[in-house]
Amino acid sequence: MERFEFLKKDYVQGFPANCGFEVERVDYGIFESRLKICSVHQQQDGFVHAGVIATMADHTAGYAAFTTVSDKYRILTIEFKINYFKPAVGELMVCRSKVINNGKKIKVSESEVFSVSHGQEKLISKAMVTLIAVPADSLS
Amino acid sequence: MERFEFLKKDYVQGFPANCGFEVERVDYGIFESRLKICSVHQQQDGFVHAGVIATMADHTAGYAAFTTVSDKYRILTIEFKINYFKPAVGELMVCRSKVINNGKKIKVSESEVFSVSHGQEKLISKAMVTLIAVPADSLS
Amino acid sequence: MERFEFLKKDYVQGFPANCGFEVERVDYGIFESRLKICSVHQQQDGFVHAGVIATMADHTAGYAAFTTVSDKYRILTIEFKINYFKPAVGELMVCRSKVINNGKKIKVSESEVFSVSHGQEKLISKAMVTLIAVPADSLS
Amino acid sequence: MERFEFLKKDYVQGFPANCGFEVERVDYGIFESRLKICSVHQQQDGFVHAGVIATMADHTAGYAAFTTVSDKYRILTIEFKINYFKPAVGELMVCRSKVINNGKKIKVSESEVFSVSHGQEKLISKAMVTLIAVPADSLS
Repeated sequence: MERFEFLKKDYVQGFPANCGFEVERVDYGIFESRLKICSVHQQQDGFVHAGVIATMADHTAGYAAFTTVSDKYRILTIEFKINYFKPAVGELMVCRSKVINNGKKIKVSESEVFSVSHGQEKLISKAMVTLIAVPADSLS
Repeated sequence: MERFEFLKKDYVQGFPANCGFEVERVDYGIFESRLKICSVHQQQDGFVHAGVIATMADHTAGYAAFTTVSDKYRILTIEFKINYFKPAVGELMVCRSKVINNGKKIKVSESEVFSVSHGQEKLISKAMVTLIAVPADSLS
Repeated sequence: MERFEFLKKDYVQGFPANCGFEVERVDYGIFESRLKICSVHQQQDGFVHAGVIATMADHTAGYAAFTTVSDKYRILTIEFKINYFKPAVGELMVCRSKVINNGKKIKVSESEVFSVSHGQEKLISKAMVTLIAVPADSLS
Repeated sequence: MERFEFLKKDYVQGFPANCGFEVERVDYGIFESRLKICSVHQQQDGFVHAGVIATMADHTAGYAAFTTVSDKYRILTIEFKINYFKPAVGELMVCRSKVINNGKKIKVSESEVFSVSHGQEKLISKAMVTLIAVPADSLS
């Protein structure tokens, strides 16, 4: 519980905070976030930039993995793959991530990203993210 | 030539402009960019966020593909995969992208991202990006 | 119906037939297959080779996409990404594929591969596959 | 030297041997293989099956990583991503793999696959493979 409250705050800092991501829901192996779409997120054609969607998919996937380790561990992304299905337009994006393979060191999360337009959700992107849990004291 | 000058400006707008990416070099099938690393790019451990690196790798890969089509076409990302080798620290990041398969519609670019610390380059990330060329008028 | 019966037979030929894959179930956007694990499928450590699992994931994903097009189209793999969760051991492997983005030309399928040991299923691998539908007459 | 001779033999067993892969060249961080294309490798349209190419790319990438560890370690594939550029036709396929990030535990290899037709090489596929070195005695 306390751990989940900590992760909710920890999620929103640095680059993700600057992007405007907010936390929607946290549970064991699960993390969900949302983003109010603004002009600052756009690319050259007026759609949300693939990089915004990738950042949301990666960051939320990482925090889904964070819910499965103690505070003695940090989570780093080894690699990810992301497919884009439709251009993202509308008011809102929602990202739902869950851990699909919870290894002790190597964890794999999946992120589904939806755009919300006039209250209607559309799946616009999906990512598979490979993460590694490293002892927190090894990073400093 | 004129086309390359146009792409240099087109590259820097919206989300990538907000991230701070700048153009370094353009040639046929080639695009290179750089980023001065600031605190706004960081994640929870003080490294450059994976999403910044992914955005740079994707955006630069897309513009490498842009150099191979006329102004009647736009380039969209179908999907990409990115590996992270080392945490990004230092003053600067440099991204070098090139088209490795130049199909008429489907193009594949590769991006190598380097961090520069005290003038020393280190390969920190590599991505493979699948793109599609679509008629410009189909997007509006 | 007839189309599904045709695809069931079409699935089992050439390399996939040599590997020993069999069809389990076909529906619109869905394809499922199975493999009796033999020594011929092994790698150097006695597990099923990653290439067997990748072939099964790719081939079954492709036929899931095949169910969504008429016989005037063929399906080719543009790219895929596959994660391995656990070594595959046991009597049987089962692959369940479904189309998760059914574009007119570009289709994305997902494959989940399970090993079955003493009747117990375990998720051992997952793949995301990007496919393209091309007119059948363009291939000859 | 002795290590490289051992790996040359170790490469050709089980599923890869059944596929017909042969070793071409071994060096530190480098592995190259070839395959005489036969009808057994084909898919439904008469091209080499994507699974054959993926198996070659994965297996050769793994042995490139093998050259960087002592015989106390085994190499397992965590995940890979592969793009297909052109249908593979011709007499021969050649795969050239090299380690592009040589971490102590996590290694990343790249594989380029060429088809050879009338003596002419064509790049038909490229893969990025994430591998892990595990103590040999942990597998038994």
